[in-house]
Amino acid sequence: MHKLVLIRHGESAWNKENRFTGWTDVDLTDKGREEAREAGRLMKAEGFSFDIAYVSVLRRALTTLWLALDEMDELWIPVEKSWRLNERHYGALQGLNKAETAAKFGDDQVLVWRRSYDIPPPVLEKTDERWPGHDPRYKNIPEAELPVTECLKDTVARFLPLWHETIAPVVRSGQKVIIAAHGNSLRALVKYLDNVSDEEIISLNIPTGVPLVYELDDELKPIRHYYLGDQSAIEAAMQAVANQGKAK
Amino acid sequence: MHKLVLIRHGESAWNKENRFTGWTDVDLTDKGREEAREAGRLMKAEGFSFDIAYVSVLRRALTTLWLALDEMDELWIPVEKSWRLNERHYGALQGLNKAETAAKFGDDQVLVWRRSYDIPPPVLEKTDERWPGHDPRYKNIPEAELPVTECLKDTVARFLPLWHETIAPVVRSGQKVIIAAHGNSLRALVKYLDNVSDEEIISLNIPTGVPLVYELDDELKPIRHYYLGDQSAIEAAMQAVANQGKAK
Repeated sequence: MHKLVLIRHGESAWNKENRFTGWTDVDLTDKGREEAREAGRLMKAEGFSFDIAYVSVLRRALTTLWLALDEMDELWIPVEKSWRLNERHYGALQGLNKAETAAKFGDDQVLVWRRSYDIPPPVLEKTDERWPGHDPRYKNIPEAELPVTECLKDTVARFLPLWHETIAPVVRSGQKVIIAAHGNSLRALVKYLDNVSDEEIISLNIPTGVPLVYELDDELKPIRHYYLGDQSAIEAAMQAVANQGKAK
Repeated sequence: MHKLVLIRHGESAWNKENRFTGWTDVDLTDKGREEAREAGRLMKAEGFSFDIAYVSVLRRALTTLWLALDEMDELWIPVEKSWRLNERHYGALQGLNKAETAAKFGDDQVLVWRRSYDIPPPVLEKTDERWPGHDPRYKNIPEAELPVTECLKDTVARFLPLWHETIAPVVRSGQKVIIAAHGNSLRALVKYLDNVSDEEIISLNIPTGVPLVYELDDELKPIRHYYLGDQSAIEAAMQAVANQGKAK
């Protein structure tokens, strides 16, 4: 039996401001940093340890992983960073406030953009300073593969090669793996592992900073999954995420 | 022309207490953390950027690298961690206060243990809790390769395979490399690059937290090297390191 741990980054500055963050490289808040440290303490207390970590190339996930591993005294494990674990790319919505966008376009349109499985927001033009090709961290990605907007289906499509070619073989080999990533890249993995339908995945909310443990059989089929920590606090955190897209 | 940057970790708790640290995994002091951030700010201001980093598996070097890259906004670059970049293993001296050891054995004997090229301190026995095989980070290293004490010659011998097989080809390929490590593992590299004699290397002191830039030709022969930052402060820092072994 294999144990795989997923962790969504702690609260970021733009979670707090309720903006579409996507690939914007915002930092954790102090609360987010504390969430990450608490996750590390929790994993250590529950006897978890890791042989290798996978993480996006965005600082909110990188820092979450760093702080958690610091608490676990496992800063020395190998860490592989991949853009394929980045948050969903929100295209031209990146940087817009969710409540304002909702007030302007209505809750329904925002929910479509945030959560529909296959309708992407408007694209980011190459001339836009937010276009990812301008960022050195993406310089080795062929332009044809570089997202300029994504629906969740697109996020799933660009994440899965990393799973199949890199992470799954490592899990299968018996190594203990942690993945630190984002709401939608982790949804992509959960959808694949649990075979969640396109409709259901939209309303699946992963709370920030809480270790999500998957127990997998030898074929990497899930046996069960559970969150570490106080279960009622986790419920409240999931509800808070679900409410983010609503107008205020 | 290639530029290679070396950085010795900032001040650690045991630098301050003047103990033989070696492979003991002590943390940076607040001053050490600030040194690391300042190094990052300096490198950024001087236009440095990196494609890849190499670092030991000890938290004082890992944290120095993390804080410097944080300041440079390069947390996303690949980081390869290797025990071959660890500090010299001080054997049974690990954990002892340098001034006390000097008062007991005399300045000369301490200087021999610290700085002679080929006389190692007494070994750590396998039954000693400090024996590195007890630490999970070294579990994949064959026992025959695992140091139980080292003279500087031994440190050179275990560092060089990493240089020849891994780092040098990457530098030669044109990638911009930073190495975050320790006084003696960096001495090992400097000895090799500059062809420093066994005698001279003993008195070469690399200050903590100051980026040391090597400009190398296509054959990786040094053209010149220099420290970034205020030159008189660097002189003082080198002198402080040289004085550490003296009785107080």
